[in-house]
Amino acid sequence: MTTKGKFITLEGGEGVGKTTNVPFIKDYLLSQNIPVVVTREPGGTQLAEKIRGLLLHSDGEEVTAHAEILLMFAARAQHLKYVIKPALAQGHWVLCDRFTDATYAYQGGGRSTPLEAIQWLENFVQDDLRPDLTLLLDVPIETGMARAKNRGGQLDRFESEHVHFFTQVRQVYLQQAQQYPERIKIIKADQALADVQKAIVENLKPLLLCP
Amino acid sequence: MTTKGKFITLEGGEGVGKTTNVPFIKDYLLSQNIPVVVTREPGGTQLAEKIRGLLLHSDGEEVTAHAEILLMFAARAQHLKYVIKPALAQGHWVLCDRFTDATYAYQGGGRSTPLEAIQWLENFVQDDLRPDLTLLLDVPIETGMARAKNRGGQLDRFESEHVHFFTQVRQVYLQQAQQYPERIKIIKADQALADVQKAIVENLKPLLLCP
Repeated sequence: MTTKGKFITLEGGEGVGKTTNVPFIKDYLLSQNIPVVVTREPGGTQLAEKIRGLLLHSDGEEVTAHAEILLMFAARAQHLKYVIKPALAQGHWVLCDRFTDATYAYQGGGRSTPLEAIQWLENFVQDDLRPDLTLLLDVPIETGMARAKNRGGQLDRFESEHVHFFTQVRQVYLQQAQQYPERIKIIKADQALADVQKAIVENLKPLLLCP
Repeated sequence: MTTKGKFITLEGGEGVGKTTNVPFIKDYLLSQNIPVVVTREPGGTQLAEKIRGLLLHSDGEEVTAHAEILLMFAARAQHLKYVIKPALAQGHWVLCDRFTDATYAYQGGGRSTPLEAIQWLENFVQDDLRPDLTLLLDVPIETGMARAKNRGGQLDRFESEHVHFFTQVRQVYLQQAQQYPERIKIIKADQALADVQKAIVENLKPLLLCP
């Protein structure tokens, strides 16, 4: 009874807890005997990771909003062809740390790239492929930014943005969730970790039941 | 009497003589007291040259047609913002070794990316900016491939393509010239170099006369 795998994406701004919850979701799926491929965007293939490098650390030359979104989708094209689609075709589930909703939030909300342009690029690169389930970890901006700062280490181009940018990012994430309520589930992520993870499992369960 | 600079592009497949004629055109313009910036695509800025590196030498992972065209336009966005537009605004002329007609020819003709997709990306990245003059150096496929091979050195991803690819590239270049006869001038490049360069100068002259 092999079925095509499910495609799950984990979304959210800075400091929402993706790093903690990616392995949690992976372990939960494995405990249910579901083979899962864990990956991330931008990145996931050798070329896509090189593009990620260009996106996150710009070395003095400012990346234009146009170049930024085109690089994002170029990396996505490689990732879909060589990682995501082959895994799903084999019946594996794919858990991806950020995907196209992040492009709407960061490039659409944060950088003001028109949503119609993102939609065009989404259709060009993905055809009709969309995640089966998107878990949107949501915390108030101040909480997220404080958590991200506490992680230490050098901030990348996106992490170094300011309150206004992250406010726009969060707003577009929440709009996306409102527009696609069947697919995108908001997880309140400023509660105790056990409660966050309980909510995650509740949202994964229906997917385990359908073919 | 400062006017906005003119934007000239030089186009053509492999082995048509661009390397010889770029410096010729530059010297001709300088001899007419025209300040000229010489540049190339893909490339022309630090980031765009890194993208060029990803495009020309793929290191084992095949670049998908989608990623290829998105990377081309990402590099172009940087090039326009940081090199081409500022130079034109200062009244300099810009001579660019390949531009968007090459995208139509190589990605549209060679890789079968739909022309409507290229048109959408062209408008997204360039708005209404188009070259003032495009010189299309044209030779029969066999002549061009033989010349390119004789150059020696390692071939890049595009140079290593086969006759069918280059036939498509040339066909789309010629179609573009037919569609935009006012802008794109075909230079028969399998004649004696002196005659090629005479034809180039004949096509540059009208541009020198208009404001």
